[in-house]
Amino acid sequence: MPDVNVGIVGLGNVGSGTLAILAENGEQIRLKLGFNLRVKIVCSRNPDAKILPKGLGPVERTRDWHDVVTHPDVDIVAELVGGTTVAREIIEAAIQNRKSVVTANKELMALAGAEIWERAIAAGINLAMEASVAGGIPIHAVLREGISGDRITALYGILNGTSNYILTEIERRGADFEEVLAEAQRLGYAEADPSADVDGEDARSKLAILAALAFGEKITPTDIFTEGIRRISPIDFQYADRLDHTIRLICAARQTPQGLLLSVRPALIPKNTILASVRGAYNAVWVRGQYGGDSFYYGQGAGSLPTGVAVVSDLMRVAREILSGSPERVSPFAHPRLGEYNPIPVTLQRRAFYLRFRVKDRPGIIAALSRILAEKNISLEAVLQLPSDSKQDLPFVITLEPSVEESVQEALRRMEGLDFLVEPPLALPIETAL
Amino acid sequence: MPDVNVGIVGLGNVGSGTLAILAENGEQIRLKLGFNLRVKIVCSRNPDAKILPKGLGPVERTRDWHDVVTHPDVDIVAELVGGTTVAREIIEAAIQNRKSVVTANKELMALAGAEIWERAIAAGINLAMEASVAGGIPIHAVLREGISGDRITALYGILNGTSNYILTEIERRGADFEEVLAEAQRLGYAEADPSADVDGEDARSKLAILAALAFGEKITPTDIFTEGIRRISPIDFQYADRLDHTIRLICAARQTPQGLLLSVRPALIPKNTILASVRGAYNAVWVRGQYGGDSFYYGQGAGSLPTGVAVVSDLMRVAREILSGSPERVSPFAHPRLGEYNPIPVTLQRRAFYLRFRVKDRPGIIAALSRILAEKNISLEAVLQLPSDSKQDLPFVITLEPSVEESVQEALRRMEGLDFLVEPPLALPIETAL
Repeated sequence: MPDVNVGIVGLGNVGSGTLAILAENGEQIRLKLGFNLRVKIVCSRNPDAKILPKGLGPVERTRDWHDVVTHPDVDIVAELVGGTTVAREIIEAAIQNRKSVVTANKELMALAGAEIWERAIAAGINLAMEASVAGGIPIHAVLREGISGDRITALYGILNGTSNYILTEIERRGADFEEVLAEAQRLGYAEADPSADVDGEDARSKLAILAALAFGEKITPTDIFTEGIRRISPIDFQYADRLDHTIRLICAARQTPQGLLLSVRPALIPKNTILASVRGAYNAVWVRGQYGGDSFYYGQGAGSLPTGVAVVSDLMRVAREILSGSPERVSPFAHPRLGEYNPIPVTLQRRAFYLRFRVKDRPGIIAALSRILAEKNISLEAVLQLPSDSKQDLPFVITLEPSVEESVQEALRRMEGLDFLVEPPLALPIETAL
Repeated sequence: MPDVNVGIVGLGNVGSGTLAILAENGEQIRLKLGFNLRVKIVCSRNPDAKILPKGLGPVERTRDWHDVVTHPDVDIVAELVGGTTVAREIIEAAIQNRKSVVTANKELMALAGAEIWERAIAAGINLAMEASVAGGIPIHAVLREGISGDRITALYGILNGTSNYILTEIERRGADFEEVLAEAQRLGYAEADPSADVDGEDARSKLAILAALAFGEKITPTDIFTEGIRRISPIDFQYADRLDHTIRLICAARQTPQGLLLSVRPALIPKNTILASVRGAYNAVWVRGQYGGDSFYYGQGAGSLPTGVAVVSDLMRVAREILSGSPERVSPFAHPRLGEYNPIPVTLQRRAFYLRFRVKDRPGIIAALSRILAEKNISLEAVLQLPSDSKQDLPFVITLEPSVEESVQEALRRMEGLDFLVEPPLALPIETAL
């Protein structure tokens, strides 16, 4: 069999992991494939700075990505630079030159994946993106082929390792968000500007890709209701624990009679569910199928080598498809064409809520709050107060019976003027579907 | 595009689930594939007894499987009868007639999968067996393609739903094995003859298939060290709990410097590992990759519809491969040819152990037992005794520091003559690798 030749653009974190695996595990890969997967050319902005791992054979080097996408011997281009500008040019140029594409780019695929895929189909080449979501979990292979016969009704994910690390550290150590974030930054788990992680945007891109894959709809990431984890404090884990729950940043996609509901937000989840056991920088995806029931997938969220495995596995699959003459055999989105997504406000849903208040203690607080809730036809389920030293910043929690979120939000707005509130109430949904 | 035609042999549990999904979810399947997956003919021993679901279009019926495997229009034969005799004839006849094969048959695939696959390759057709292990978990797709770039170093599974149900009910209710088994039989979770489930043979077949898939070796199931769960009692869960562990029937496959080590046996696993959260009739697989790290897969172990999803997803994949002209694109075992497996006795491994005794109370018991252990150079880690009413059937536990199992087994044999033992000691390994 002839070789299949790969050109790699970007030798950062993911690119180095990919090359290390191709070099070290090359013999097993060759045995599995029955042919050679050769690295023909690599491109990085500073090609002299990086020493390539041994065992790759002769590899051409360049600083100009055009050399990769136009290389006559290259069959597959791996775009591993990230971002939505140059990366898009690289991928589009590769498609124009009829090279198949493997990418780890969540942001670009969330933003323009469907459009890029249509160009790929038209050009008769393949586009693979396993590495774009949850590097260490082959969730694309699962949704695209493994359970393709099922009809997915809901998908829940923990898709941002940094947020999950921070939340589980707040839980474990009882430390504040700011303190844990600062430590995560020192350890390199969080970036200097952490907002993409802790405000939910990174998770939102990943949810947009997984929802497209699972439900066959073209999602605009900015249509997704998104809330970050900055307001979660140790006291919230103590109250959640009292309710036999914990708190995670949950990416949710659910089919409802009104349509597909999408959200990224911190939520209370029962302690005895398997999602609650996801700690540290791990990712997980919970899938509910109409026929197959519940299944669950867990692994490293990121990292050079786990993401490298996803890139290499994609390269192997695409290489097989090229040699078997069927490069575009399966759409990366499982569905051959994505339908138009009609965003439905999650706030129209009925669900149970956790409301956490901090108040200056005085008589009549519960009466004032419950009056406002009653005016919006919202029923209290319980009022919880753990022992506290402070009279000036007294936390307590009200849980609500399932209520339409819009009414809850209106009630919260009416509470804004109450002079005993030290800060606006924190409202978290309680996930009962898991 | 032309239709791809399926012939189904066997309309039992899995066959009915498969037909129900093909009928109900047919439109989405057609959309995903871009062509029709048609049920052309079905075979069951009593074809008049079963009414086919609506929505399949015209379907031929027969009592003779030869009509399916020789049908000129059939492209894929789904063998859903089980067992190793007729099923093997059906599959071999299908291959001879150049039909691709989808099977749910763990027993046959564990016994002769490699051989059957070689015939399939020679005939240029495909053989798919996602449904043969853990119906609700697409673990074949994960190992075959999803993480194919990784080098797997260990795989741990909970692969028998009946045993896991029984163990977790013993744990939850404190009831004896026999009582829980009888109830499981009443509820239909266990068969009248439960031995294949509770003695580990069913799990052993599944481990043989997964190990072949993950490590590329041709495993003979009877070479696998196998122990069932009949001796596990509520007291073992109490002691395990005291050690912050629980007990599961663990299928293990580990690469060691000496070779591949395989076992199916009840073991203590730490409570805070994700495998410990697998309860009831669920299955799970934990995979450790040299590059990707740990990943975990969880879902229904069996059942008409979950297994049907696996069959339908395989049918979709094989149908795509037929239409794209590459029926044999990927081996069901990931590796194109399976190597010879050299069985290594698990008893040569060093590991920590849990020994549970039942004794008639009298002085000198610990002295007698610890003398025998010392003679085999085995170190005690701890002696545990929970309060008990009985002096005649007093349970207690000794945990051992990591020791070569062969020495532990010799020590246990030497203990056989001790007159204070009410029954032979129960020895369970303590899994520390999870």
